Amino acid sequence: MTALRPPREPWRDGPRLGTFAELSGPAASAFVHPSTVFVQPIGATEHHGPHLPLSTDTLIAEATAAAASQSRPELSLAVLPTIAYGLSTEHIWAPGTVTLTPTTVLHVLDEVALSVMRCGGTRLAFLNAHGGNTPLLQVACREIRAKHGLLTFLLHPSLPPDRGGEAVVAHEHGLGIHGGHEETSVMLHLRPELVDMTLAERNVPGWLASRQHVRFGGAADFGWLSNDITASGVIGDPTQATPDEGKALFEAAVRSVAEALTEAAGFAFEPTSLR
Amino acid sequence: MTALRPPREPWRDGPRLGTFAELSGPAASAFVHPSTVFVQPIGATEHHGPHLPLSTDTLIAEATAAAASQSRPELSLAVLPTIAYGLSTEHIWAPGTVTLTPTTVLHVLDEVALSVMRCGGTRLAFLNAHGGNTPLLQVACREIRAKHGLLTFLLHPSLPPDRGGEAVVAHEHGLGIHGGHEETSVMLHLRPELVDMTLAERNVPGWLASRQHVRFGGAADFGWLSNDITASGVIGDPTQATPDEGKALFEAAVRSVAEALTEAAGFAFEPTSLR
Amino acid sequence: MTALRPPREPWRDGPRLGTFAELSGPAASAFVHPSTVFVQPIGATEHHGPHLPLSTDTLIAEATAAAASQSRPELSLAVLPTIAYGLSTEHIWAPGTVTLTPTTVLHVLDEVALSVMRCGGTRLAFLNAHGGNTPLLQVACREIRAKHGLLTFLLHPSLPPDRGGEAVVAHEHGLGIHGGHEETSVMLHLRPELVDMTLAERNVPGWLASRQHVRFGGAADFGWLSNDITASGVIGDPTQATPDEGKALFEAAVRSVAEALTEAAGFAFEPTSLR
Amino acid sequence: MTALRPPREPWRDGPRLGTFAELSGPAASAFVHPSTVFVQPIGATEHHGPHLPLSTDTLIAEATAAAASQSRPELSLAVLPTIAYGLSTEHIWAPGTVTLTPTTVLHVLDEVALSVMRCGGTRLAFLNAHGGNTPLLQVACREIRAKHGLLTFLLHPSLPPDRGGEAVVAHEHGLGIHGGHEETSVMLHLRPELVDMTLAERNVPGWLASRQHVRFGGAADFGWLSNDITASGVIGDPTQATPDEGKALFEAAVRSVAEALTEAAGFAFEPTSLR
Amino acid sequence: MTALRPPREPWRDGPRLGTFAELSGPAASAFVHPSTVFVQPIGATEHHGPHLPLSTDTLIAEATAAAASQSRPELSLAVLPTIAYGLSTEHIWAPGTVTLTPTTVLHVLDEVALSVMRCGGTRLAFLNAHGGNTPLLQVACREIRAKHGLLTFLLHPSLPPDRGGEAVVAHEHGLGIHGGHEETSVMLHLRPELVDMTLAERNVPGWLASRQHVRFGGAADFGWLSNDITASGVIGDPTQATPDEGKALFEAAVRSVAEALTEAAGFAFEPTSLR
Amino acid sequence: MTALRPPREPWRDGPRLGTFAELSGPAASAFVHPSTVFVQPIGATEHHGPHLPLSTDTLIAEATAAAASQSRPELSLAVLPTIAYGLSTEHIWAPGTVTLTPTTVLHVLDEVALSVMRCGGTRLAFLNAHGGNTPLLQVACREIRAKHGLLTFLLHPSLPPDRGGEAVVAHEHGLGIHGGHEETSVMLHLRPELVDMTLAERNVPGWLASRQHVRFGGAADFGWLSNDITASGVIGDPTQATPDEGKALFEAAVRSVAEALTEAAGFAFEPTSLR
Repeated sequence: MTALRPPREPWRDGPRLGTFAELSGPAASAFVHPSTVFVQPIGATEHHGPHLPLSTDTLIAEATAAAASQSRPELSLAVLPTIAYGLSTEHIWAPGTVTLTPTTVLHVLDEVALSVMRCGGTRLAFLNAHGGNTPLLQVACREIRAKHGLLTFLLHPSLPPDRGGEAVVAHEHGLGIHGGHEETSVMLHLRPELVDMTLAERNVPGWLASRQHVRFGGAADFGWLSNDITASGVIGDPTQATPDEGKALFEAAVRSVAEALTEAAGFAFEPTSLR
Repeated sequence: MTALRPPREPWRDGPRLGTFAELSGPAASAFVHPSTVFVQPIGATEHHGPHLPLSTDTLIAEATAAAASQSRPELSLAVLPTIAYGLSTEHIWAPGTVTLTPTTVLHVLDEVALSVMRCGGTRLAFLNAHGGNTPLLQVACREIRAKHGLLTFLLHPSLPPDRGGEAVVAHEHGLGIHGGHEETSVMLHLRPELVDMTLAERNVPGWLASRQHVRFGGAADFGWLSNDITASGVIGDPTQATPDEGKALFEAAVRSVAEALTEAAGFAFEPTSLR
Repeated sequence: MTALRPPREPWRDGPRLGTFAELSGPAASAFVHPSTVFVQPIGATEHHGPHLPLSTDTLIAEATAAAASQSRPELSLAVLPTIAYGLSTEHIWAPGTVTLTPTTVLHVLDEVALSVMRCGGTRLAFLNAHGGNTPLLQVACREIRAKHGLLTFLLHPSLPPDRGGEAVVAHEHGLGIHGGHEETSVMLHLRPELVDMTLAERNVPGWLASRQHVRFGGAADFGWLSNDITASGVIGDPTQATPDEGKALFEAAVRSVAEALTEAAGFAFEPTSLR
Repeated sequence: MTALRPPREPWRDGPRLGTFAELSGPAASAFVHPSTVFVQPIGATEHHGPHLPLSTDTLIAEATAAAASQSRPELSLAVLPTIAYGLSTEHIWAPGTVTLTPTTVLHVLDEVALSVMRCGGTRLAFLNAHGGNTPLLQVACREIRAKHGLLTFLLHPSLPPDRGGEAVVAHEHGLGIHGGHEETSVMLHLRPELVDMTLAERNVPGWLASRQHVRFGGAADFGWLSNDITASGVIGDPTQATPDEGKALFEAAVRSVAEALTEAAGFAFEPTSLR
Repeated sequence: MTALRPPREPWRDGPRLGTFAELSGPAASAFVHPSTVFVQPIGATEHHGPHLPLSTDTLIAEATAAAASQSRPELSLAVLPTIAYGLSTEHIWAPGTVTLTPTTVLHVLDEVALSVMRCGGTRLAFLNAHGGNTPLLQVACREIRAKHGLLTFLLHPSLPPDRGGEAVVAHEHGLGIHGGHEETSVMLHLRPELVDMTLAERNVPGWLASRQHVRFGGAADFGWLSNDITASGVIGDPTQATPDEGKALFEAAVRSVAEALTEAAGFAFEPTSLR
Repeated sequence: MTALRPPREPWRDGPRLGTFAELSGPAASAFVHPSTVFVQPIGATEHHGPHLPLSTDTLIAEATAAAASQSRPELSLAVLPTIAYGLSTEHIWAPGTVTLTPTTVLHVLDEVALSVMRCGGTRLAFLNAHGGNTPLLQVACREIRAKHGLLTFLLHPSLPPDRGGEAVVAHEHGLGIHGGHEETSVMLHLRPELVDMTLAERNVPGWLASRQHVRFGGAADFGWLSNDITASGVIGDPTQATPDEGKALFEAAVRSVAEALTEAAGFAFEPTSLR
């Protein structure tokens, strides 16, 4: 797998940079109205083990954004070009990972928000497929709300157990958070040609589960790099992943994101007043 | 309550800046060994409604740190001076709030970590009592792990529902996250003279609960200021708070933090290897 | 054109994030050798007048990178995910423009370079399709060379007259630098469905040409926004653009970039010594 | 002295975070009027030799703020939570020192000033007990004056000889600036249980006094670390310090600070005009 | 005192801080009117080989500014103090080079622009004699235009071949860009006592010319340090430089800059409108 | 060429870029040895009232550096190009003032220090003629000492009363700190053609002297802009200034600076050790 796939005339059948950027400037301006939701997909370019591509999170973010927006033609959704470089500090040790620093990511997000504001946008939803981006995006959502007045949202195709989500399969014991059953299944559905199941290996860090507080989803967070957890950097068990399960997971994610986008389009703060 | 309480000769019976800073430099150096956990309490100085002091989070962080460390004399815990200014963007509209910006907080935390490292420390636990600090502390934990090699932990006396915690009382409907039943009860226990129950009012934003995704604890995060949620900035119902309940909550928090510190003192990464 | 095009199942036939990110981490590491050239396409998301999409520069950067790399299978080219947000200060007044600040762009480029270095890369070529990015990329090329030791290159599909290039067609009088004959023709070739020729209008700022020094390509540079030059922000004459001419221009660009990449793959400094 | 003192139920009898933060937000707002002076105590957490605690400067800042404010009930003084981490670059070599960088400190001070301004405050006095903070605080005072319009003041319990102050005792020859007679005496008065006089040693850098310009208090400043001056980092002679002298010094400091606060409360610029 | 003092052959015996700073504040304010051009000379302090001084670029920038402004008494030109430290990353390896970083230079330029604006200035021309500054100044010109509304210009005494200029002499083959025939000749004219022709040596990097794209003035830019190009860091052939040729080059540069300044003084944007 | 050119009464006829920059790179490298002191003159470009030029501080810094270095041919002094833009926040309201921000100045100084270090320098003396720069230079001296290991010094031609200096003349009552008797006299000596005594006016802010703590040279510093103190921004009485007195003051300043440079050239830390 060390040879690169031949490109498929991407400038013809590709590239998906979000449908919003396919509009002209004046058309963009005309398109935006008060309930338009700008959707900023954000992924990562990072090590996902030997069986998955570096672009796993980016592909999932982009596919989810496209499918969710396609599923709700009644909404006004302005899907922005996917951001492929995020905060991947936990995989900085692994060749192939391209990571920005936290302050650079905060600046990028702030400046995107300002650009949305200058286009008349009032609603900005980050659609994030990389757990490592999540806390920084939470910070950004509030700062943008306070500094620029936008309504901000943070959506995920799914939440891994270390971010408060539930485990997808029992055999990962709540430890499948990177390159495991869920991501591998979804990729087998979306882009099977980029997955090499012959290299998939189980990497469930049982040692971590024995703790009560300092563990994924425990009361105590902790700072970890992926090679602190397993030698390969995969955390989970991809060996039983299937495209069918990936299809179901993807469709559920799309439904969930589409519903959240519907709520975002109609969202308004109604500060409770006592008098 | 617009008059300031007379100070009580604080340079005698007071100030609690963490026991670590009461050591001399050479004593600090001698004190630290590989299982020493540096504990950095961090709170906030921010509006908590008319019935609670600005220092609520700082007092709780400091009290929890002191009590938890006192309860585990067998551990080597170096409690650092409490940080009273954090990220309080959500209350920036309210007079009395003192807030730093995210990048300033990240710099402060990074530079504290470097100082711990220069003292021979290898374990650093942030003990955080303000939910608004949490995502930034999660970012800091990982960056410090990667950049300086420390083992980092993030502990909370309790997790409010918008950060993944469970609701304490039913009558808040999972919406008691700021100045509500829990914080008020704990403060009635710790510092009753600073609480004015005659000003406590119920502020439960029922309108928010009607949503499925965009709500506290929902799949979709969102950027909010406290006066987006309720006119007073209090989010919850403090009216039924009691010191007894506060005592129970505080003691549970201390137990939980103490257990987590015990785990932190013995924590080691054991990266799972396939061969 | 204010309706968004229906997405075409992009997660199937699309997305082009550069072939490099389709490799796994270990495969990426194995792929890289001393003559591998990392290619970072960079475009912009900015106003190009009413007849061209916001993504014009990004699409051209990506298509050129893909075609040039496809045309030289003998080279080891690691095409990175296209960066869609650049420095578009000159169009900041126009809705739809998404621009970063210069320091943010410099940080992004520096951090990408560090990531390339950590993957064993020694050669990094920026393939830039937006003239507004050029000076900043020149700065970045040298800084990265000095700070990280990489060999750095800056390639363009074509150079507009304000950046030292020659005019493509006479009827633009050397003033066709944004949304004019060349870009429109290339887009008619690459993505005709995104071009609306009924909205194309001639915007040749004759007043500017009357100066000797302070003009595009004159001895004196000057700081301009696109609406300083023409009311519409288009600078050039797209009305006579044709797909055939776009094909020719694109193929010439691809050839030129491919040749430059060949040189980059074999490039070595040979500092002349007098003894 | 390598064992930590047992905490004394600090959440009961302690912690002094400044009386201002004990107010609620609305009470804080009501408290502030045009002659209110916000007092921001700032200390350091740094090596002070083997006989004094790391928190020496913080304790002195806090005690002086509390006593001075207590002594002037007729003034409206809003004492903010003490900042325990400052600029301690000169002790960065010594374990136990926690230091921020100059730009981080400038940001913290600027953001505190903005918060004071949002509370209606117009007067901000830094009460600084660490000489290493002084120049940066001078910079901050002017910048805050210019950027935010506040009246700013910088008060010190005492000025060491290297900052323009007079020598307290003759036997230090004007070289008692860190951990010497004055600080040790004051600490013997304020917190004797934290001082270990058996470890106090004379460290008077006579070699420095032989110079005419490059010396403490000379016409030429110079950049020094404390271990450039003496091997132990103590600069002065603590061996003859007494609590009685500490009491006198502290009371004089409190008087002086209280008088300065009185002036600050009534201060107004009256720009002299020639006509 | 609102008239500027007549310059006295400034590049010889001159008032060396720019004539503007010789005015008082009130005189400066009275001097500035809408067609005043502020001229900011910028050079470098960097290695120019063994035969030329470190200050070569600074002296040329300053002399050109003085002579050009002297030659156009009819213009209102406010020549600012020359900036002697610029972006000299390419010579960072060579002792004697004093270089700032790109972000520091951008900040300096931005803050100078703000100061010009506060003086009522609306036109700011950078007169730059160091090629390494050029791209950053281009960025600054546009940013200042967008952020502060000034009209900005970037003038050069001459453009070396790697910045789009033509070769001055054939025997350098377009490779004379640093310390070569042109700069040496000009310095022999301006400050012969600072030139040591006995140390001048030919350093023409013929190897570089053999490439088609990756070369000075080729379609592909590349990041180079001067010792990547030649061992001595000189790039060109100074051995045939003469003061006469320097005089001619200098006078041509002065004429060209003076003409550009005349255009700058009368420059106005006239955005072409279609209706 | 390793010897510096003899200065030619530089504060009169000179091009003042510092004699160091008149050396070539190799000559600079050969010139530097362990007792070489790099001298960085720093002034300001700021309002000094209607009778003095904006460049007052820069001219004084440069002239003092030149004369002091000329007076000590036995020392190895590398006088760097004068920095004309400093921190002039207190005069930001006055047209003609060019000011940088504190963080920009800190970066410039740090990067100059790094450049000195790369040239083999170990001693760096800032020669500062603008009081507003002083605290920031004090910060820089220590940071550079700690970060880069240089010996750093901060010299002043004279210290105004607000920086700890003594009053020069009685009739200013210790309030002559900007554009007053001393600066005006020195300028009448150095550059009489730039002084207009017909516009000199007495501006002694008597109101300020009535305070005990909050005054120039009092125990309490305060943040002031020059137009907070007097309407004209001049603080002092220039009306009795004379060139003779300026000559005496200048010569005393030169002597004092020369002595301090001699000490700096031989300075070594000799940390006192107790054993």
